[in-house]
Amino acid sequence: MILVDGLECSQFDRDIFLELSRGKMGCVTVTLGFWEDALESIDALTRFRDLVRDNQDLVEICVDDSGIRRVASSGRCALLLGYQNTACLSGRIRMVEVFADLGVRVMQLTYNNQNDVGGSCYEVHDQGLARFGREVVEEMNRQGILVDLSHVGERTSLDAVALSAVPVAITHANPSSLVPHLRNKSDELLRALAARGGVVGLATYPNITGPYVESADRWSEMVARTVDLCGVDHVGIGTDLGRKNTQVHLDWMRMGRWSRVVNFGAGSAARPGKVPEPAWLESTETFPAIPEALDRRGFSATEVAKIVGENWMRLYGEVFSGRRAKSLAA
Amino acid sequence: MILVDGLECSQFDRDIFLELSRGKMGCVTVTLGFWEDALESIDALTRFRDLVRDNQDLVEICVDDSGIRRVASSGRCALLLGYQNTACLSGRIRMVEVFADLGVRVMQLTYNNQNDVGGSCYEVHDQGLARFGREVVEEMNRQGILVDLSHVGERTSLDAVALSAVPVAITHANPSSLVPHLRNKSDELLRALAARGGVVGLATYPNITGPYVESADRWSEMVARTVDLCGVDHVGIGTDLGRKNTQVHLDWMRMGRWSRVVNFGAGSAARPGKVPEPAWLESTETFPAIPEALDRRGFSATEVAKIVGENWMRLYGEVFSGRRAKSLAA
Repeated sequence: MILVDGLECSQFDRDIFLELSRGKMGCVTVTLGFWEDALESIDALTRFRDLVRDNQDLVEICVDDSGIRRVASSGRCALLLGYQNTACLSGRIRMVEVFADLGVRVMQLTYNNQNDVGGSCYEVHDQGLARFGREVVEEMNRQGILVDLSHVGERTSLDAVALSAVPVAITHANPSSLVPHLRNKSDELLRALAARGGVVGLATYPNITGPYVESADRWSEMVARTVDLCGVDHVGIGTDLGRKNTQVHLDWMRMGRWSRVVNFGAGSAARPGKVPEPAWLESTETFPAIPEALDRRGFSATEVAKIVGENWMRLYGEVFSGRRAKSLAA
Repeated sequence: MILVDGLECSQFDRDIFLELSRGKMGCVTVTLGFWEDALESIDALTRFRDLVRDNQDLVEICVDDSGIRRVASSGRCALLLGYQNTACLSGRIRMVEVFADLGVRVMQLTYNNQNDVGGSCYEVHDQGLARFGREVVEEMNRQGILVDLSHVGERTSLDAVALSAVPVAITHANPSSLVPHLRNKSDELLRALAARGGVVGLATYPNITGPYVESADRWSEMVARTVDLCGVDHVGIGTDLGRKNTQVHLDWMRMGRWSRVVNFGAGSAARPGKVPEPAWLESTETFPAIPEALDRRGFSATEVAKIVGENWMRLYGEVFSGRRAKSLAA
């Protein structure tokens, strides 16, 4: 059984890598940026590479599923490089290949605002994939980068599911039919994503998890309901853990440089600051509580393995192999 | 009578400044960028400043209506600095003030593609100003930068007309009821813009001017029909002249860095390259043919003066003074 967390936005350091180790994590997708432009995003990537080099006894950056298996088998945690926005492309279609060359394997089409690719979940309107957005999705397919729709608007998400030649992901969100929130996803979108082979990573982030955040068992109830909705092959975990994030980090995520007024992101005026992580999952150190709870809920060993990691591994294999094939052909 | 051209996208040099001089032009808005990011846009501005410094016997950069009058009275041509995209902000709300400080007075909300501000005329869908877009329009109001909607989508344009505290402009487009083209503007939008005090600058660019491009008299017929639609206080001229533009410049305008496939912009597969400027207006050298034709069409001297320049001057006064007031108050 490999444990995979589809998305974290922590301020990674050795402490957090040790938590991954103690939680026996096999693979985690890290967030290298939200609003940053191309050069800033590459800079963040190079700094992260140095950090990983300094901690190679614990972690390694991976670019394909066989690499992830190898690193996980060695008792370390494989890291996938990701961005939560296509702002990192700075409007340049050819930057998709650059980021793929640099090892990036996950990219969210939009963060909290509309961009030149598509609409966001927080915009009043979302008009679907824009002209550049269609080119970006097709290029991400060619370059073996996983399309992430977590913060993306409904119409743009449906467009991306339909357009993408390979399955796409919602790495960190929950069904809005269970937890109503702009960040969560409609049953229609979740079913469409699953029908094309995609995976939704359910989040433990309290602002979008409602009552299901209370305990691992309560959270597993949300997993079970989502499995009923999408099928057991299409549900994974994407905690959205933000270890060591401070108010400064939250402000950046929410306001970036686009606003002069306060914006609460997934929070609200009533919950403006950082909300505590769930007591049962303050870090990935206690991630193994999830398969235990899924087991108690009655999932078979095979089903538990799929949910806690194998569904992501199957998807990663399908998406990342696009780049291998291309490289061999080129 | 002051002659004002609301928008040109020429490759300015001394030759073209001499054409402005021979055409007795009082003021022209120049295009400093289309897809460029903040630093690239500032770089273009600094290069243009050097060019103007080297030709100060012919031109001067102006930032308010009194400056324009002064320069025009001296027999030189006042230049307003403009960008045809908010890509120059690089997603940073505080860059609006930076560009205003640097003398920029005209900014188009979107060029040919959707961005983080709003939707474009060439997108399949446009559902209005985005979250960042609302902040940008309000900040442009505060900084005294004219909101230009020429390449902007219909819904975003209507939103901007309604949101802006001061009148806005369509610096270079024609009524789509007269010349059907994605780049041209609906009667509904033109009437809404005029009702709030805005000005539409009619273009001579052949791809969007249809049969009215044939002669100055034919073009004046389009002016007359637009005056019937919007009122004589709300129609000006924005030729969209692209002197010395080559295929390289056209490719940049149309494809920028966002596409790997051919895009024809306002052209088409049938008209892929640069179309010749109208024979009667190959450059602003023959701009005085316009007031003559308007006179022949029966407009009064006062009306002609409004159309060929005074309407722009009234709008510039209203919009740019916002910044003067702010500066005095701050």
